[in-house]
Amino acid sequence: MSARPPIETDALIIGAGPVGLFQAFQLGLLEISCHIVDALPHAGGQCVELYGDKPLYDIPGTPATTGRGLVDSLLLQVAPFKPVMHLGQRVETLAREPDGRWRLSTDHATEFLAKTVIIAAGVGAFVPRRLAIEGVEAFEGSTLFYHPDTLDRFAGRTVVVNGGDDSALDTALALVGQAAHVTLLHRRDGFQADPAKVAALRAHIGDGTLSFVVGQPSGFDGSELEVTLPDTRIVSRSIDAFIACLGISPRLGPIADWGLELERKQVPVDTEKFETRAPGVFAVGDINTYPGKKKLIVCGFHEATLAAWGAAALVFPGKAIHLQYTTTSTRLHQLLGVGGYAGG
Amino acid sequence: MSARPPIETDALIIGAGPVGLFQAFQLGLLEISCHIVDALPHAGGQCVELYGDKPLYDIPGTPATTGRGLVDSLLLQVAPFKPVMHLGQRVETLAREPDGRWRLSTDHATEFLAKTVIIAAGVGAFVPRRLAIEGVEAFEGSTLFYHPDTLDRFAGRTVVVNGGDDSALDTALALVGQAAHVTLLHRRDGFQADPAKVAALRAHIGDGTLSFVVGQPSGFDGSELEVTLPDTRIVSRSIDAFIACLGISPRLGPIADWGLELERKQVPVDTEKFETRAPGVFAVGDINTYPGKKKLIVCGFHEATLAAWGAAALVFPGKAIHLQYTTTSTRLHQLLGVGGYAGG
Repeated sequence: MSARPPIETDALIIGAGPVGLFQAFQLGLLEISCHIVDALPHAGGQCVELYGDKPLYDIPGTPATTGRGLVDSLLLQVAPFKPVMHLGQRVETLAREPDGRWRLSTDHATEFLAKTVIIAAGVGAFVPRRLAIEGVEAFEGSTLFYHPDTLDRFAGRTVVVNGGDDSALDTALALVGQAAHVTLLHRRDGFQADPAKVAALRAHIGDGTLSFVVGQPSGFDGSELEVTLPDTRIVSRSIDAFIACLGISPRLGPIADWGLELERKQVPVDTEKFETRAPGVFAVGDINTYPGKKKLIVCGFHEATLAAWGAAALVFPGKAIHLQYTTTSTRLHQLLGVGGYAGG
Repeated sequence: MSARPPIETDALIIGAGPVGLFQAFQLGLLEISCHIVDALPHAGGQCVELYGDKPLYDIPGTPATTGRGLVDSLLLQVAPFKPVMHLGQRVETLAREPDGRWRLSTDHATEFLAKTVIIAAGVGAFVPRRLAIEGVEAFEGSTLFYHPDTLDRFAGRTVVVNGGDDSALDTALALVGQAAHVTLLHRRDGFQADPAKVAALRAHIGDGTLSFVVGQPSGFDGSELEVTLPDTRIVSRSIDAFIACLGISPRLGPIADWGLELERKQVPVDTEKFETRAPGVFAVGDINTYPGKKKLIVCGFHEATLAAWGAAALVFPGKAIHLQYTTTSTRLHQLLGVGGYAGG
C-alpha cells in the first residue's frame, strides 16, 4: 500500500479512550515510549463520544466529573510522556513477524513494527454506520461518502445527503449554495436535531434552495440512486455523490480478523499481565474478559497498570525492574518533569 | 469483655486508608452498608500517616495530589453512603460463627457480627512503637502509656516522657506546669522536631521547669525506671508514669493470628473476587497477594471493586445483580444523592 517505512516502537496502543491514555502513562513510568492509534479524530473514545457531557461518579478520588473532564485530566497526566497520537485511523491488520514483533497497518496506510501491542479498543472502533445496500462499498471515496471531514469536493455537484441528525443537517445546510443541487433524504419527516438547524432547513426547503425527500435508499450503482418511498414506490435519479450521515457507532471491526481468541466479542486475557494468548499482545479495558470481569473504567486502569509491567518484561528482557513510587522516586519525578525537574 | 451486644452488619472493612474508603463506596453502589475500623484516630491510613503532604502523580485522572488530598476526595466520594467509622480501634480477633458470619472484636471491646469482612489493612495497623523492655506490657494503661490522647491523668505526678520528635516534645511541653515533675528522656541531645518547640524545650530546661536526660530506658517495673546513660552507667529513679512517644509504625499485628493463610506477611487472594481462602473474608490493597500483584493504590481500587461484587453475592444470595453505570443509572443517582436526587 505504502512506500513509507514502518514506524518502529516498543509499544503500540490501539484506542485512545481513558484506559488507552492511562496505559500510555503507566508505560511512561516504566520508561517505555509508545504510539496510540484511534479511529476517532480526537482522544477519549466512547467516554467522549457517548458521555462527554454526562456525569461520572465512580472514578476513585474524583467524586464527580464528565466523560470529557476525565479525558482532559488523563491527557494532562500523560502529557509528560508525549505519546505519539495517530487519530482518525483504524488499525486494519495485526500479524506476527518472524522476529517476534508485531506488524500493524491502518486504513491510512500507516505501518508499525511494535515489540508489544496493547489493545484498549473498548467496544470497538467508532465508525460511521454503513449503508445496508449490497455492493456500495465499491463507491466509497469516489461517489459515496460517510461523514466526510470536508465538503469542498462537492462544489457544483448534484448531491444527496442521507440522515436526520445534527450531523446530517449540518452537512446539508453547509452544501446549500456550494453544491449545484442538494437533496436531504431521510426516512421520516422529522429530525433529531437542534431546533434552530431544523428551522434553517425548513426555510431552505421553503425557498427551494434545498430539496427534501422522505424515503430510504434502496440501490446505488455509483451514479444512479434508487429510493424507496413510504408508499413502497421506487424512484430513481442520477447524482454525482451520495453522502451518508447515519451516525457513528462502535464496531469490533477488523480486530475479529486478527486470529485472536474471542469469547462473545471479547478477548480472553490472564489476570497477571492482561496478556492475550498471542505473546506480546495485551488487552485492557472493555475489550477483554477474565473471571470476575466488570466493564468499569476503574478496572481498566488496573489492567493497564499490570499490562505495562508485562510489556516492560518484553521490552527490557532480563532486566530487573523495581516498583518505584511517584511519591518518593526522583527518577519518576524526572520523567514526570515535577519537583526539582519541573523544567525538564 | 463487654456487655454491649455486637454490631450486626453486612460488611465490615478493616482499614480506613484510600482502598478501604473506596471499598465502602463500591459497597454503597451495590446497596451494602458497612462499618469501618481503623487503628488510627483519623481516616487515611499510611496515605496520610506516611505521605500526607507528599505528592502523588499516579492516581488515574488526578495528575497531581497529596496523600491527604486523595483521602479528602475519597471521603467526599463515599460520604453519600455514610459508612460508620470506628477510629482509634484495632481489630484483635476474627472468628467464624456457626451461622457462617464472622465475629470480630476490637481492643476497645467493640464487637461485630459481619456477613462479610474486607481486610484493607495495608501494611498493618499503625500502632505506637513499643518499648523493648521485657515484661513492660503489664503496666500499659496504669503507669506506662504510648502516645496518650489526653494528659489529664498526669496532673500532679512525676512523669518521664521518652522520645525526641514533635510528638514527644508536644507531650513534655504540655505537661510543664501540670505534672509535679517532668523529665524528657531521649537517646541523644538533639531532636527531630519543629525548631520553635526545641527552643521552648531548651528554655524550660534552662529555667529548671523541665529536666532533660540523655539515655535509654533499660528497665521498668511499673514504678522504678532504670536508664542506661551514654557512658553505660545505669541510674534509676522512682516515677508515677512513663510516657513513650517513640513514633507510630505499621504492624501486621493480630491479623497474623486469625488463621488466614499468609505468604510473606501477605494474604493470598483469588483475582475474581479478591476473596481469601476463608469464605466471606476478602483482602484488598497492599495486604493481599496474587500473581502479578503490585502494591499500588490504583490496583487496590480495582480489587475493592471486584471484592464488592464478591460481597454482594454473599449479602444478597440468589439475587441477580446487574452492573449499573453512575453515568446513566437513576437508582445510583438516587443513592449518591445527585441529579434530581440531590436533596435525598
